[in-house]
Amino acid sequence: MVDSMTPVKRQPESLRGRLRVKPGAGVDLRSIAPDETFGYRKDTAQAKVAGDVERLVDLQERIWAERAHRVLIVLQGMDASGKDGAIKHLMSGLHPLGCRVVGFGVPSAVELAHDYLWRVHQVMPGNGEMAIFNRSHYEDVLVVRVKSLVSEAVWSRRYDHVNEFERMLADEGTTILKFFLHIDQEEQLSRFQDRLGDPTKRWKFKMGDLEARQQWDDYMAAYADALSRCSTDAAPWYVIPANRKWFRDLAIGEILADTLDDLKPTFPEQADLPPDLVLT
Amino acid sequence: MVDSMTPVKRQPESLRGRLRVKPGAGVDLRSIAPDETFGYRKDTAQAKVAGDVERLVDLQERIWAERAHRVLIVLQGMDASGKDGAIKHLMSGLHPLGCRVVGFGVPSAVELAHDYLWRVHQVMPGNGEMAIFNRSHYEDVLVVRVKSLVSEAVWSRRYDHVNEFERMLADEGTTILKFFLHIDQEEQLSRFQDRLGDPTKRWKFKMGDLEARQQWDDYMAAYADALSRCSTDAAPWYVIPANRKWFRDLAIGEILADTLDDLKPTFPEQADLPPDLVLT
Repeated sequence: MVDSMTPVKRQPESLRGRLRVKPGAGVDLRSIAPDETFGYRKDTAQAKVAGDVERLVDLQERIWAERAHRVLIVLQGMDASGKDGAIKHLMSGLHPLGCRVVGFGVPSAVELAHDYLWRVHQVMPGNGEMAIFNRSHYEDVLVVRVKSLVSEAVWSRRYDHVNEFERMLADEGTTILKFFLHIDQEEQLSRFQDRLGDPTKRWKFKMGDLEARQQWDDYMAAYADALSRCSTDAAPWYVIPANRKWFRDLAIGEILADTLDDLKPTFPEQADLPPDLVLT
Repeated sequence: MVDSMTPVKRQPESLRGRLRVKPGAGVDLRSIAPDETFGYRKDTAQAKVAGDVERLVDLQERIWAERAHRVLIVLQGMDASGKDGAIKHLMSGLHPLGCRVVGFGVPSAVELAHDYLWRVHQVMPGNGEMAIFNRSHYEDVLVVRVKSLVSEAVWSRRYDHVNEFERMLADEGTTILKFFLHIDQEEQLSRFQDRLGDPTKRWKFKMGDLEARQQWDDYMAAYADALSRCSTDAAPWYVIPANRKWFRDLAIGEILADTLDDLKPTFPEQADLPPDLVLT
């Protein structure tokens, strides 16, 4: 157990500090290697990952009991970047009562008849709850921008909307973490090939995925802008090197556990229970 | 008909210009007389009011048909200031299919477990729709402030939230009008007395109304701040002198009709109909 923890000692800076997009500083995605693992090795990482899951399970139970905090986790990334896998990992130990996963696909007619934040605001976590967004309002400055679904005048002012929206949520009690799962084109191709060749995964592949793949550079430019302009103290973005699935899970787990730890959630006192209550 | 319209000629500036709280300029509610009527007289106003209702009916039908605009009307005011009456008047000719009235009372437990904009965002109008809010998110800087339901640190940052929220709505296609129904304490007393003495109105009176009445000056200070800080080009506040019910209806009707007129809503062309289509 101690042996497997050595990477932590060799790497004193937390992944939270390393992977966070510094507010105001901007991000160059080409300078971040998608197969970076910061000295961790797959074989020695297991115990570390399990330890963080244990911390998460305990923290989420306290948050649910205390009903004082709300937690929003946003996952974004290209097709096959591992959003579903990350969710499966995160949810592995969490109590489903206090946790909700919400996927945002192509908006419905009713959703399109409203502002783009309408559908996401409705499913925000309440007190004690944790929500994991599989894609999010960021699609309205990503796919919407790349495919020119609205004019530049419209999408370009959305960065400010989003920052102000997230600031309001944070002011009112929501802890926000946003993860960009960073893979490269080679890794995507290999995962697409796996999907096509596996009858249990083939359903995940859509012809539209190839279209987005051809616009890779446009998407990376859109992501770089979204991450640069919308990483704030209230709602930071993290770039997760995600070519290695095990490291993706390790990084998200550690960053989330460290963040929830800072909330210091505690099981509430039941003030109306006599301290010497005995049930007979 | 021409005679009854003379006040309009004597008063060339529209009520929209006169009653709008100038963005950035602030408002002193004591300088605005609640029984002001700008030269209009009850007996001669009827035709003018009917004319504006006719305009409204036509405009709303076009907005509903066109599905390009969303309209939000916020009504705020002290108890018995005439919010219900104004809604009854406004809705008199409008098609209920495209119009929704939403009342915001004391928040439920689920609503309190979310940010204060959560419940209002959900019921925002969609394309072609008009929503009339009987009270609104402004209660979160009014009653919540006067009764200290949250700390000053919390309510004082909400003015910015609200401005940014309304700017986002406006950017994305919502036309916003906010009306403060301005009555004085004498008028409120007389309306309370009417309510108490009338078995069909007595149900409207609550003992809590007297508490708010005793905090009149605190409420006026909170209203002055909300109106001063949150009247923007995107979402202007109007102070409606509301001691006279007929003038209240006249002013709201004219301001709303003038605003919707600017949208120039048109019945859409049905591009797929052959121009010479004859049904037999």
